[in-house]
Amino acid sequence: MQKLRLGMVGGGMGAFIGAVHRIAARIDDQYELVCGVFSSSAENSRASGLMLGLSPDRVYSSYQELFEKESQLPEDQRAQVISIVTPNHLHYEPARQALESGFHVILDKPMTFSLQEAKDLANAASASGRLFCLTHTYTGYPMVKEARQIVQEGRLGRIRKIYVEYPQGWLSGFEEGSGNKQASWRTNPDQSGAAGAMGDIGTHAFNLAEYVSGLEVTKLCADINIVVEGRKLDDDGAVLLKFANGASGVLMASQVAAGEENNIKIRVYGEKGGLNGSKVMQTASC
Amino acid sequence: MQKLRLGMVGGGMGAFIGAVHRIAARIDDQYELVCGVFSSSAENSRASGLMLGLSPDRVYSSYQELFEKESQLPEDQRAQVISIVTPNHLHYEPARQALESGFHVILDKPMTFSLQEAKDLANAASASGRLFCLTHTYTGYPMVKEARQIVQEGRLGRIRKIYVEYPQGWLSGFEEGSGNKQASWRTNPDQSGAAGAMGDIGTHAFNLAEYVSGLEVTKLCADINIVVEGRKLDDDGAVLLKFANGASGVLMASQVAAGEENNIKIRVYGEKGGLNGSKVMQTASC
Amino acid sequence: MQKLRLGMVGGGMGAFIGAVHRIAARIDDQYELVCGVFSSSAENSRASGLMLGLSPDRVYSSYQELFEKESQLPEDQRAQVISIVTPNHLHYEPARQALESGFHVILDKPMTFSLQEAKDLANAASASGRLFCLTHTYTGYPMVKEARQIVQEGRLGRIRKIYVEYPQGWLSGFEEGSGNKQASWRTNPDQSGAAGAMGDIGTHAFNLAEYVSGLEVTKLCADINIVVEGRKLDDDGAVLLKFANGASGVLMASQVAAGEENNIKIRVYGEKGGLNGSKVMQTASC
Amino acid sequence: MQKLRLGMVGGGMGAFIGAVHRIAARIDDQYELVCGVFSSSAENSRASGLMLGLSPDRVYSSYQELFEKESQLPEDQRAQVISIVTPNHLHYEPARQALESGFHVILDKPMTFSLQEAKDLANAASASGRLFCLTHTYTGYPMVKEARQIVQEGRLGRIRKIYVEYPQGWLSGFEEGSGNKQASWRTNPDQSGAAGAMGDIGTHAFNLAEYVSGLEVTKLCADINIVVEGRKLDDDGAVLLKFANGASGVLMASQVAAGEENNIKIRVYGEKGGLNGSKVMQTASC
Repeated sequence: MQKLRLGMVGGGMGAFIGAVHRIAARIDDQYELVCGVFSSSAENSRASGLMLGLSPDRVYSSYQELFEKESQLPEDQRAQVISIVTPNHLHYEPARQALESGFHVILDKPMTFSLQEAKDLANAASASGRLFCLTHTYTGYPMVKEARQIVQEGRLGRIRKIYVEYPQGWLSGFEEGSGNKQASWRTNPDQSGAAGAMGDIGTHAFNLAEYVSGLEVTKLCADINIVVEGRKLDDDGAVLLKFANGASGVLMASQVAAGEENNIKIRVYGEKGGLNGSKVMQTASC
Repeated sequence: MQKLRLGMVGGGMGAFIGAVHRIAARIDDQYELVCGVFSSSAENSRASGLMLGLSPDRVYSSYQELFEKESQLPEDQRAQVISIVTPNHLHYEPARQALESGFHVILDKPMTFSLQEAKDLANAASASGRLFCLTHTYTGYPMVKEARQIVQEGRLGRIRKIYVEYPQGWLSGFEEGSGNKQASWRTNPDQSGAAGAMGDIGTHAFNLAEYVSGLEVTKLCADINIVVEGRKLDDDGAVLLKFANGASGVLMASQVAAGEENNIKIRVYGEKGGLNGSKVMQTASC
Repeated sequence: MQKLRLGMVGGGMGAFIGAVHRIAARIDDQYELVCGVFSSSAENSRASGLMLGLSPDRVYSSYQELFEKESQLPEDQRAQVISIVTPNHLHYEPARQALESGFHVILDKPMTFSLQEAKDLANAASASGRLFCLTHTYTGYPMVKEARQIVQEGRLGRIRKIYVEYPQGWLSGFEEGSGNKQASWRTNPDQSGAAGAMGDIGTHAFNLAEYVSGLEVTKLCADINIVVEGRKLDDDGAVLLKFANGASGVLMASQVAAGEENNIKIRVYGEKGGLNGSKVMQTASC
Repeated sequence: MQKLRLGMVGGGMGAFIGAVHRIAARIDDQYELVCGVFSSSAENSRASGLMLGLSPDRVYSSYQELFEKESQLPEDQRAQVISIVTPNHLHYEPARQALESGFHVILDKPMTFSLQEAKDLANAASASGRLFCLTHTYTGYPMVKEARQIVQEGRLGRIRKIYVEYPQGWLSGFEEGSGNKQASWRTNPDQSGAAGAMGDIGTHAFNLAEYVSGLEVTKLCADINIVVEGRKLDDDGAVLLKFANGASGVLMASQVAAGEENNIKIRVYGEKGGLNGSKVMQTASC
């Protein structure tokens, strides 16, 4: 069985989501990491690549160099897919260039820094003829896949109501003021874009609601708050939702729900039954 | 120890909340039921009163008769407090007349049939000099009282976020079409007033949010739905809330959350910690 | 509706289970407390009786006096049932004398101070022709009654395995050395008899296993421990059980399970399904 | 970073635990699978090896052949560690021969088919100077490692009581009579040895108790049952335990707990606090 050859942009030492992508790839054993540029620092990139067991000549100093050099390798050696795991403001450029250089692209959420970039990237993906995958990690969990299947099989009947929530408490204090790297970029509009908590975790809740229900959100009304003094981006919000089939919903996402760790949860109710986290409830008459 | 002498309006055979009031009164052993009119049917009223061990001459045929006759009894025998446990459209008149006849009044939620009646009744209560208590059953639970105390003691710090919810599933079908008495009056605007699920259970969630947090709601934005075809009143809703201190919140109440039984729940988050159902979480730095 | 006239032995100010019996009696509204001796101190007995609203001439100084005086009252006034809620070493005498004086008896668990007393009391109850009820509080809970019914209806099939447990942690330290009244009598062989934790809470677990399953324990093998240094009675134990139908079981009871509050729980498994606390699980083929 | 070169005995198509070992190895990325014999059928072994991406010349037909041929390869190419994931009756021979051929050995639980084999293998491991690892999968979970650490750090104080349980329900019926392969070998004394449920899952519970507490079991008293008619090995059991420090415990393992899936759980109580599944409880005075 031939494995797919994977290149990675981002994810060096000190980063968070890149290692998750690599572990996920190894669990299924369908990918082999063959090259990468792991940091904007050439030194960090090189050290990270060697730690990962890569050949030194396939650890690059920039994504431009990676795309160029890999394209020149023989077809049965060059990377086939590029996984992009950089901060939000560095999603658009490498993703677009990878697609235009002929690589398939796996991009971690949220899509881009701005809505305009997202639209442009969608067009670039269509034009390229390459696969473009936007990863929301929770869709990979067996329980989430089972929830989606339960809805698809009609076991709940027509969907009427969806509650989805993602409470975290780790930004209850002004963490970005005390050198917390994970807090700093997430609360910095120059790196995260216009959305704070909504971009960071609200997107997961939104994706989960659409993924599990199979329904698209068509209207919404949102209450977005900056709770912690001095913060520059929203750290809390709640959204009333309407779905394409007329169902309604509520999305709650907060990073100031003190004491909560990372509690994403979905509840879906239909004509015939409901799904509450891991519990499936069907009404007697079914 | 002298017990308080209690009269009751409503709560005869076939009713629901009257028996709850009587049990609650007996648990604490501070009240003695001495008289009542238990039904609009004189026959049902009499049978119910005798079942409850009342003297026949203190089981009445109308609340007007009860107020009049009890007022004529010696001061150390007559009812001191009237508990009113009738359907919503029969709250205002007996409550007002009881207050004006010199009785203290315990009225089960929701206050009245319309906002205007509620305002008038509040005025009547003030003018009467009598105690007027509006009961929301959940405030009587030890865990709810403890939650309120935790907030009051400042263990969570200044409150920032409140999630309160009350999902039920028993009205997922068109129950009012099949002779279900509990469903019929709750979904009938002539008996329940302008609000269905919001009046029936949303009021409990609203009360719980204000009671536990000690904060008043000052602004709201609501999404109110009639989900089941043919129903005349809302059976589902969600509300974005703002509290007097600037905290925000979400209230969810539904009677079409299929599979849910009666799951009222509150979560409160402050600067120093959070409270999630029965779990109190304080952050490390406190 | 005529209420049953209840007398009480024990349960004065500072006691624990007497108030529970009184509340339980009031919830159902079938009993009226008419007399009692509430303490071995005549003063405490009198004060407690007045607090409870009794007529002074029906608050007695000893149970012997109570039985004698009540027996002389007219038949439609005297107590019909005596509830005995004294410490274990004061179960046998008042229970036996109450029965022999013609009263029905409600006695709180454990039955008596010694096995011999229990056998004698059983004989006295049979000979008296009066009702003798031994109360284990948990059998009164709706969920316990439902569990028993689920087994009786055969929904689990023939019962094969029972796990029952009652972990508490409040005796993890040498509480009896610091003036804790509840700890003192429970760990004192002169007041509790031969069994500590097993008599205090193991009896509840044992009763629950037999009550829910409808099966009698026929053999057992027990590991009984005194864990806290200086304690005189067992504070921990575990028992392997065999039931009359061949099923086996495990009973665990501990008062040194630090951190646990009062977590009685039963699990019952049969040929067709299982019952785990509040969860009923039936296998697919049923 | 150089990965360790891994060979595998067992774990071909249709097997269960071999794939778990391979996934676990990939998650950490410290091992590279280089060779194996995956089945007693040469054809299945070869097909499985090719599916796993191995070079055909390193997929063998017997473990004897694997040990012999790998030993002849250059030191920097040959397998360094052998993972043995065969049924219980095929643990001893390949493990002993692997050790004697100079390979480190990872063997899945239970150790061997008989106690005598286990003692012989322990001696062989000592004599070989190679590493010998017996894997109990649950010790690899982060929550289990954290539990062990909590005990080691003394947060619970001296350990007094351990409850460990492993209820399953999948053998509630006579599965071995209906061609269920997983049921057949587990209930067959020729393949599993003297112990059924105790060997299959009781070993996990036992290991968990010793691993988390850091204490050795020194005495036990067991109730072992064959519940399902016609079964040849125990499918249920409970054990009273004594640990080296005087603590006592209870171990429950059953494969006829109808409705349970795979619910291994441990509770550990010490002088200062307790650990109940994911909940750590410390008493106020600590």
